[in-house]
Amino acid sequence: MVQLGANRYGKAEIRMVRVARGAGPGGSDVLRDWNVSTSLSGDLAGSHLTGDNSNVLATDSQKNRVYALAKELGAVEPETFALALAAFFTASQEPISRARVAIEQYGWNPVGSTGYSFARAGDLVRTTTVIHDAEAGTSVVSGLKDLIVMNTTASEFWGYPKDPYTTLPETKDRILATAVNAGWRFWPDTLDRMDWGAAFTTVKETILGTFAGTYSYSLQQMLYTIGSAIIAAVPEICEVRLTLPNKHHFIVDLTPFGLDNDREVYHADDRPYGLIEGSVLADWAPDPGLAWT
Amino acid sequence: MVQLGANRYGKAEIRMVRVARGAGPGGSDVLRDWNVSTSLSGDLAGSHLTGDNSNVLATDSQKNRVYALAKELGAVEPETFALALAAFFTASQEPISRARVAIEQYGWNPVGSTGYSFARAGDLVRTTTVIHDAEAGTSVVSGLKDLIVMNTTASEFWGYPKDPYTTLPETKDRILATAVNAGWRFWPDTLDRMDWGAAFTTVKETILGTFAGTYSYSLQQMLYTIGSAIIAAVPEICEVRLTLPNKHHFIVDLTPFGLDNDREVYHADDRPYGLIEGSVLADWAPDPGLAWT
Amino acid sequence: MVQLGANRYGKAEIRMVRVARGAGPGGSDVLRDWNVSTSLSGDLAGSHLTGDNSNVLATDSQKNRVYALAKELGAVEPETFALALAAFFTASQEPISRARVAIEQYGWNPVGSTGYSFARAGDLVRTTTVIHDAEAGTSVVSGLKDLIVMNTTASEFWGYPKDPYTTLPETKDRILATAVNAGWRFWPDTLDRMDWGAAFTTVKETILGTFAGTYSYSLQQMLYTIGSAIIAAVPEICEVRLTLPNKHHFIVDLTPFGLDNDREVYHADDRPYGLIEGSVLADWAPDPGLAWT
Amino acid sequence: MVQLGANRYGKAEIRMVRVARGAGPGGSDVLRDWNVSTSLSGDLAGSHLTGDNSNVLATDSQKNRVYALAKELGAVEPETFALALAAFFTASQEPISRARVAIEQYGWNPVGSTGYSFARAGDLVRTTTVIHDAEAGTSVVSGLKDLIVMNTTASEFWGYPKDPYTTLPETKDRILATAVNAGWRFWPDTLDRMDWGAAFTTVKETILGTFAGTYSYSLQQMLYTIGSAIIAAVPEICEVRLTLPNKHHFIVDLTPFGLDNDREVYHADDRPYGLIEGSVLADWAPDPGLAWT
Repeated sequence: MVQLGANRYGKAEIRMVRVARGAGPGGSDVLRDWNVSTSLSGDLAGSHLTGDNSNVLATDSQKNRVYALAKELGAVEPETFALALAAFFTASQEPISRARVAIEQYGWNPVGSTGYSFARAGDLVRTTTVIHDAEAGTSVVSGLKDLIVMNTTASEFWGYPKDPYTTLPETKDRILATAVNAGWRFWPDTLDRMDWGAAFTTVKETILGTFAGTYSYSLQQMLYTIGSAIIAAVPEICEVRLTLPNKHHFIVDLTPFGLDNDREVYHADDRPYGLIEGSVLADWAPDPGLAWT
Repeated sequence: MVQLGANRYGKAEIRMVRVARGAGPGGSDVLRDWNVSTSLSGDLAGSHLTGDNSNVLATDSQKNRVYALAKELGAVEPETFALALAAFFTASQEPISRARVAIEQYGWNPVGSTGYSFARAGDLVRTTTVIHDAEAGTSVVSGLKDLIVMNTTASEFWGYPKDPYTTLPETKDRILATAVNAGWRFWPDTLDRMDWGAAFTTVKETILGTFAGTYSYSLQQMLYTIGSAIIAAVPEICEVRLTLPNKHHFIVDLTPFGLDNDREVYHADDRPYGLIEGSVLADWAPDPGLAWT
Repeated sequence: MVQLGANRYGKAEIRMVRVARGAGPGGSDVLRDWNVSTSLSGDLAGSHLTGDNSNVLATDSQKNRVYALAKELGAVEPETFALALAAFFTASQEPISRARVAIEQYGWNPVGSTGYSFARAGDLVRTTTVIHDAEAGTSVVSGLKDLIVMNTTASEFWGYPKDPYTTLPETKDRILATAVNAGWRFWPDTLDRMDWGAAFTTVKETILGTFAGTYSYSLQQMLYTIGSAIIAAVPEICEVRLTLPNKHHFIVDLTPFGLDNDREVYHADDRPYGLIEGSVLADWAPDPGLAWT
Repeated sequence: MVQLGANRYGKAEIRMVRVARGAGPGGSDVLRDWNVSTSLSGDLAGSHLTGDNSNVLATDSQKNRVYALAKELGAVEPETFALALAAFFTASQEPISRARVAIEQYGWNPVGSTGYSFARAGDLVRTTTVIHDAEAGTSVVSGLKDLIVMNTTASEFWGYPKDPYTTLPETKDRILATAVNAGWRFWPDTLDRMDWGAAFTTVKETILGTFAGTYSYSLQQMLYTIGSAIIAAVPEICEVRLTLPNKHHFIVDLTPFGLDNDREVYHADDRPYGLIEGSVLADWAPDPGLAWT
C-alpha cells in the first residue's frame, strides 16, 4: 500500500513585464522584468487520489492573479510582490495552507535620455523566494545568480592530500573564476521593515568587493569569506548559501612551440568543473524550516 | 558572529565514456556514456575558515578516480559504479565522512551489425544518486528525466474552484503532455541484491504504460497513479518523486478564418507552464534522511 | 549615401501540433509536431525607408495562415506543407515575390495500443526549407540535424602535415563520433512527384548505414562517402551539404595510477571541436540559386 | 556520378583567455576572453575522396597556433588577431588557399581597484570574422550580438494589408524590443589603418543611440535607420547586416478582473516571434564576395 507524500503545484515561469510610466527619476519609466513561479500546497489529496479538483485553484488562475497584482502594486521590489502574492493565495483559498512564490528579475539600464529606452544589463539575475505557510509562518530568501567574476591572480592552491589518484601540481598562482549563485535568508522578525532594494545592492557590492579583496587559498575559503561579509554587511540576514563552480582556466603549455607562458595564455574549460557549496549562518540563526524548499 | 553550516564540494560533470570491447551480444561493444558528479563532506572547516587544505582531496583527484574506477569495473550499471565510488572516498579519506555520486547516463542504440556502431537514443536520460554517509548509511535514488509523453485525448480538467481571477474554461477533452522527471528511492536493505538494469527497465515501462493507460482528470492524479504503479511494479522501491511540467497545447481558434477546429490544430506553448510535483511513498517507508539532498 | 540591400521578414518558430485523429494504422492518431518559420521578400522598401507598411503582411497574419493551412491540409509531409504555404504567400500578396518556409519536425513514437499515446523520439530533428520565388522558381532542401553517431573503432587519422604547431600523435584507432547535420537539395523537376516521407527514410537509413559501414581515415572522407551514398540512394537529390562536428573522445592516460587503458576509458570533450563542412553534388547539378539562403 | 563541392574544416570554439599583466591603466591587467573558430579551404580533395590527409593541417595544430599567437601578439583587438591568424595559415600551408577566422569576445569590467579583479559584462558579445583568400583578398566583418534593447513607447504598427488571415489590431503604441544581432563589413582598402576598438565603440553607441532616438513605425524602419546611422558614423564601413527578432510584449487583458491596463502589464512571449533581416549598403559598396560566408 502506498500513500501521498509532500506535493505542490503551480504555474512556472510567468514572464511578466511591468512598466510604471513616468515613475522614475526625471519622469522616466521604471521597468520590472520578471519570471514568476507560484506553487501551492494544502489539502490536495482528492486531486491526486480521485481526480477531484474541487480544491485545485487552476494554475491559469494563479497566472492571472500575478498579472492583476502587478497592476495593483506597481513597480515594487520583487520581495514585496512575492510576499503579497503568497499571502493572497493562502488567505483566499481555504484548502491552500502554503504558497511559494519565486521571482527572477532581469536588470535593464537606461539608454540615452528618453526615459523610455533601455538595454538589458546581463551581468546577473536577481532572485527571491517567499514561502508563506499557515503554521510555519513566512520566510524570505533573496539572492542572485550568474554573476561571473575572475581574479587573474591572488589565488593559490596547495597543501591538499596526495592520494594515489592525485596528479594535480600545487600552485602559488592561478586564475580564480566562478559564477556566483547566492541565496540569503532574512531573520523572520525583519520582514516587515526591510528595504529590499537597498539590501540587494549592499549584498551585491559586498560580494564583488569581497571577491576582489580576498587573497584565496581555496574556493571554500572564498565562499566562507563572502558569506561572512554578507551577514556582517546586512545584519537582517541570518544565513547565506553559496554555490560556486570553479571555472577552471588552465595554463597552456607553449614549450613545444619554443615559447614560455608566464601566466598569459589560458584555456577556459567547460567540463568537468569543481563545485563548491556551503552555508554560512549567523549565530543563533533560526532553523530554516521550509525556507529553502 | 557567524559559523559554517552544511557544505560539500566535488567535481561536477565528468563526461566519461567507457567502452567494453566485445562484451556485448555477439561480441559487440558495450557503451557507458556518463556524466559523473562527485561531492564530499566531512571535516572541512579548516579549508573554509583558514584556507588549510590538508583535508581537501582535490576535485582533480576525484575526477582521476572516476576514470580509474571505470577501467577497473568495466561497463557496469551506474548504481554499481556510484556505490563503489562513494564507498571509496569515505573509506580512503579519513576526514571525509560523506560522499555523494550522481550519474547521468545517455543511451545509445546499435546501428547495423558491426558491433561498434551506435546512434544516440535521445528519448530520456537515466540517472542515479548515491549517498554514502559514515553514520546514516547508504541511499540510492535512481531515476530518469526528459521523457516527453503525450496523450492526444483521454484527459479532462473541470470542477476546480472559480475565484475572481479564474477565466479558464472547463474541458472534457484536452491534450495531456509532460516531460517525466522521476526519482525512485530504494529500501535500504535491498541495495546489495538489486538488479539495477532490470529495475530501470521495469520502471520505465511502467511509466509509459501507466501514462498511456490512465484516463486523466488532472496531472496530479496522473502523478499519483504513476508513482503508485512504480512501487507496485518494483517492491524494492519505497518512494517515488515526480516533477511533471504541464506542457500546454492550446487549441487554436480558427473561427475568424471560417474554419472549425475539432481538436486538430494546437499551439505548443513554452512559458508559463503548469508544474506538478509530488511524492508517493510505500507504507512504512523509512525517513529519506539525506537521500534526496 | 546608402541603399537598402537584401531583406526579408516573417514569423519564426511557430510551434504547431497537428493531430489527425484516427488517420493512422488501426485508427490511431497521426501527429505532426512542427516548428514553422516563414520569411517574405519583395517590394518592401517603403517599410524600411519611411515606415509605410502597406506592403507588409503582418507576421501575425503569417502565423494565422500556418494554423489555418494545417487544418486544411491535415497531417501531411512537411515538404508538402511548406510548398503550399510558400506558394500561398506569393500568390496572395502582390508585392511579395519570394517566400521561404522552414520546418523542423519532432518525431513521436506510439506508446502501447491506445492509438492516442506517444513518446517523443529524440534521436534527430527532420527539417525542410522551401523557397518559392516569382522568377527563380521553387527549391526544396530537406534535411536532418542532431543525429549523434559513434563508431568505437574503424577510424584512423595519420599522414597529415607536421607544422611547428603540430603535437597531435598519429593514430590507427580512435573513436569517431559526430552529430550529423545534413541538408539535401532536390532536382527542380522532381518536386511534383516526390514521396517526401520515403525519401527522408531512405536518406536517414543511408546515413546510418554508411556511417557504420565506412572505415574512416578522416571525417572529410566520411562526409564525402555519406554525401555520395545519399545521391546514389535517392537520384532525385542533386546536392548534399553536411556539417559534421568532430566530437572528440580523448583516451585517458591511466598510467599514473598503474593502469593501462587499451581503448577503454575516454573523456568526451565539449570544446573546442573539429568542424568539417562540405558539399557533394551530382554531376550536372543545377546552380543552387536561393535554395540554401 | 558525383563531385566534391565547396568545403572547409577547422577547429571551432577554442575558448582562450589572454591576460596581459599590468598592461592596462594604472598597471591593471588587460583581458581578452575569446571563442575562436578557424576554417581552412584549399586542395582538400584527397582527404575527401581517398582519406589522404597529406594536405590536412590537423585541427589540433590550428588550435595550438591560436594559443601561440595569443602569446606573441598580446591583448590585441580581435580583428588584429584574426587577420594575423588567417594570413598565417594561407602563407604557411601551400595547399591552403583560404582561411576563415571567427572570434567572439566576452566583455569584462574591472571590480574595485586591485587591477586583477573583473566581472563579466553580459550586455553583448562582440564578434569578428576575417576571411583571407589567395585570390579574392581579405575581408573583415565585425559585429555584435545579443544586445537586448527595449523602447516602452514611441512605436506604432498600422497600415498593413488585411488579408483573410489578419486579426492583429493596429496600434499607435506598443513596446518595441529586440536583440540586436549586427555585422558590419569594412571597405577593403581600410583594413590596414582601422582602429578596431574605436570603430566598435562608435558602432555600439550608434546602435543604442539610434534605437533610443527613433520613433518607430515598423521594425524594418528601425533596421534601416540603424544600418544607415552606422555607415554614417563610421565611413570605413560599406555594409551592415542586421537580424532583429521582434521580442513581442503583449498587453494583458485585465478587464475580466475589473482592472484597466493602460500600457502597464505585459506578457513577454517566447515563441513565435517576428524576425526582421536586412542589409544596408553604402553606395558603390563592393561585392561582398566571400565576406559573409
